[in-house]
Amino acid sequence: MNLVQPSPAPQLSPELIARFRFIVGDRYAVTDAADIAPYVTEERNLFHGHSPLVLRPGSTAEVSAICKLATQHRIALVPQGGNTGLVGGQTPHNGEVVISMRRLDRIRDVDPASNTMTCEAGVVLQVAQQRAAEVDRLFPLSLGAEGSCTIGGNLSTNAGGTAALAYGVAREMALGLEVVLADGRILDALTKLKKDNTGYNLHNLFIGAEGTLGIITAATLKLFARPRAVETAFVGLKSPADALKLLAISRAEAAGSLTSFELLADIAVDFSVRHGIDVRAPLAAKHPWYVLMELSSLRDEARGTLEAILERGMEDGIVDDAAIAASLAQRQAFWKLRDEMSSAQKPEGGSIKHDVSVPVAAVPDFIAEANAAVVKLIPGSRPVPFGHLGDGNIHYNVSQPVGADGAAFMARWHEVNAVVFDIVLRMGGSISAEHGIGVLKRDELPEVKDKTAIELMRGIKAMLDPLGIMNPGKVL
Amino acid sequence: MNLVQPSPAPQLSPELIARFRFIVGDRYAVTDAADIAPYVTEERNLFHGHSPLVLRPGSTAEVSAICKLATQHRIALVPQGGNTGLVGGQTPHNGEVVISMRRLDRIRDVDPASNTMTCEAGVVLQVAQQRAAEVDRLFPLSLGAEGSCTIGGNLSTNAGGTAALAYGVAREMALGLEVVLADGRILDALTKLKKDNTGYNLHNLFIGAEGTLGIITAATLKLFARPRAVETAFVGLKSPADALKLLAISRAEAAGSLTSFELLADIAVDFSVRHGIDVRAPLAAKHPWYVLMELSSLRDEARGTLEAILERGMEDGIVDDAAIAASLAQRQAFWKLRDEMSSAQKPEGGSIKHDVSVPVAAVPDFIAEANAAVVKLIPGSRPVPFGHLGDGNIHYNVSQPVGADGAAFMARWHEVNAVVFDIVLRMGGSISAEHGIGVLKRDELPEVKDKTAIELMRGIKAMLDPLGIMNPGKVL
Repeated sequence: MNLVQPSPAPQLSPELIARFRFIVGDRYAVTDAADIAPYVTEERNLFHGHSPLVLRPGSTAEVSAICKLATQHRIALVPQGGNTGLVGGQTPHNGEVVISMRRLDRIRDVDPASNTMTCEAGVVLQVAQQRAAEVDRLFPLSLGAEGSCTIGGNLSTNAGGTAALAYGVAREMALGLEVVLADGRILDALTKLKKDNTGYNLHNLFIGAEGTLGIITAATLKLFARPRAVETAFVGLKSPADALKLLAISRAEAAGSLTSFELLADIAVDFSVRHGIDVRAPLAAKHPWYVLMELSSLRDEARGTLEAILERGMEDGIVDDAAIAASLAQRQAFWKLRDEMSSAQKPEGGSIKHDVSVPVAAVPDFIAEANAAVVKLIPGSRPVPFGHLGDGNIHYNVSQPVGADGAAFMARWHEVNAVVFDIVLRMGGSISAEHGIGVLKRDELPEVKDKTAIELMRGIKAMLDPLGIMNPGKVL
Repeated sequence: MNLVQPSPAPQLSPELIARFRFIVGDRYAVTDAADIAPYVTEERNLFHGHSPLVLRPGSTAEVSAICKLATQHRIALVPQGGNTGLVGGQTPHNGEVVISMRRLDRIRDVDPASNTMTCEAGVVLQVAQQRAAEVDRLFPLSLGAEGSCTIGGNLSTNAGGTAALAYGVAREMALGLEVVLADGRILDALTKLKKDNTGYNLHNLFIGAEGTLGIITAATLKLFARPRAVETAFVGLKSPADALKLLAISRAEAAGSLTSFELLADIAVDFSVRHGIDVRAPLAAKHPWYVLMELSSLRDEARGTLEAILERGMEDGIVDDAAIAASLAQRQAFWKLRDEMSSAQKPEGGSIKHDVSVPVAAVPDFIAEANAAVVKLIPGSRPVPFGHLGDGNIHYNVSQPVGADGAAFMARWHEVNAVVFDIVLRMGGSISAEHGIGVLKRDELPEVKDKTAIELMRGIKAMLDPLGIMNPGKVL
């Protein structure tokens, strides 16, 4: 997709490149085009960037020195973690210098008594999860890319994922941050404190700012008690409205133990079963809708609670069929079906994607209205809605009509967007629930956001990055 | 305490007063000194302010019109909710115009399916709690002043309270805000969405800003499932270190069901029993330390879990004695002892107060070191530490030596502060955990806060309130 017109690379003289190299050391300054390639493209091949220089600093001080030098010479920077973002936020679309944060991968402190862990930005999410488990704690953030995405990227994009229902999004897992500002100043807002009312809340400005206000170099994260019992069910039901009723029952019975509640349209499950490797349908018969739900408990009552929820659902005529995972392998199989849902859409041709949220109560109406509107716009197109019902967050994807021309379908991306976003906004929803703005939705933002909010965002950007060198062209 | 030198009231011409009156209507513009008195003093009589005019707007539009006019004429404003703040943040120390928000008391929306409630700023906390209960939900924020403090004040000061352990501080209960800026612009950042990654996080700037960046006029709050079973225990033990061990056991057994864990020094309990009305000691014998803990559960297992925790504590030699409340009346009696703790210090003479937090694991060391340092500084002085151990938040109060001169003792407030804050900061703590900065700690702030953080705070203040009319002299 050609969302951003590439412009000539900035004047980065050999002398200036040498000065940047000197900061990180020759070994960690990448200038060879072939070595740069993995940093300027991304997995889905949707965004292609270019850059004359990738810097791989090993410390906060080096990040600070890079920013200072960049400010002196007005050199634009793009910070990058695991390069797994979905909205082009981590890509140097206009020849910016890339700062790869992956070498800042120290876990500085683990404090199980205070339930905190301080990680540098380049720590891979899965590594953070494992380190927490080693001290018998849970770091709950969990998403598809967890094997390669980094804590810095998770916070810069305010990642959501499958555990947000119980534990919140990435923002809610950070107690404090260390941030390098555009001019090289280091903001030390790291803290283990849950309660600290000394002045304005600064760290939340940088969370979800996609690197446009500063570069997150470290974070103090919350840890939680590690669940002893995890129980997972795959449920067949008639409608999103029934799924919403089941959610209400589940919340009343399980409260904080309800750690996932995913709504899946039949077509999404069909695609996964058809195209996924080793993916099977968990239920014998077909149902119009499915719920993948999980309870995590410190004690042994999770199974009993889950059974009580499903029984109540059957009594109320909400649940048509359900399977509880009998083993870890079966549980993983349920989740594999869910995890393959995105990639399983590829073999079905063009897919126009939305990552939206609406108030939880509005999800059934949203899906019904969006389906009708999209099919009216493009007859034969196949809506594939699935996502985190408990968070009101639906990945509302639309696959092309069977046998249609994929390119022609994809060319209508913005048209389909417009129809879907209209419904989202009318319902008080968000056009980007968990993936962020990046470049993908940048041009839509002023249309959907409160005017005063946009003015404040511009004011904050101007204050923190007056030269506009921090991830330019993203978000705003 | 004469923390702020009163200066002459600003030039508020009769004509300008008339224009302000016109905005809210004559009935809601208070100009009579006797009627103004309740707005410029506070319950403890620690802060005395003065003001020529108290405005009582009834809508966001009226607040906006007031701010617009104030900007045009550079008139300073002090927003006020229930006037229960403890740091002088709501007091017009220099003759500012007071905006009392209490008439903005509509609950605009209650949505149990989405688990949200949208309240105007003047809604009294207890009213919000009751409204949530009416739809079988919990709004968990709870603090001593809940009968008169308001949602707007709670958010502006980022209130903590006794339920923060499980549900977080006020910040974590707000999904979005409506805010009137200094120039009258209205920021509509109200949202029911848990996931919304469209741009910078603005609403958190205003939470905890004590009205210095804008006036919160409404908030969308999170609701939670209402617990069915609440079980409360009063525990006697030997030391804060043992209390910390009991906390670890409690977290491992009860996790999110552990809704309160208060640490109380014996002297704090003694004062409460001695001076409180109808307050009795829950345990037969005396113990050096006590814990007041509570479990809230959706199901019936809370009692069993609490018993298991206490048994384990006794087996481990941590718990010396414990009583579980056998009735609602007994539970209320336990809490009354805790709630009277602050006022019970008054009859014991001068009391120098601190509201600090340190990492949870550091609480025992903090108390030991602070006790030693304070008694060394003022021999005979009586440290009265108590507070929210699970949040690392200790109300570290110091009562005067028996028979000493109260005024002379109170004159050493800053000396005692200095000694205590030194220890807090060395341990990575905060000098204001939940009460805020106001004027009380304003002058200390630059000394304890990261230099870059202060610079950013000043930058944000200058951007949002260039004329300095929003609650001037507070925080910064």
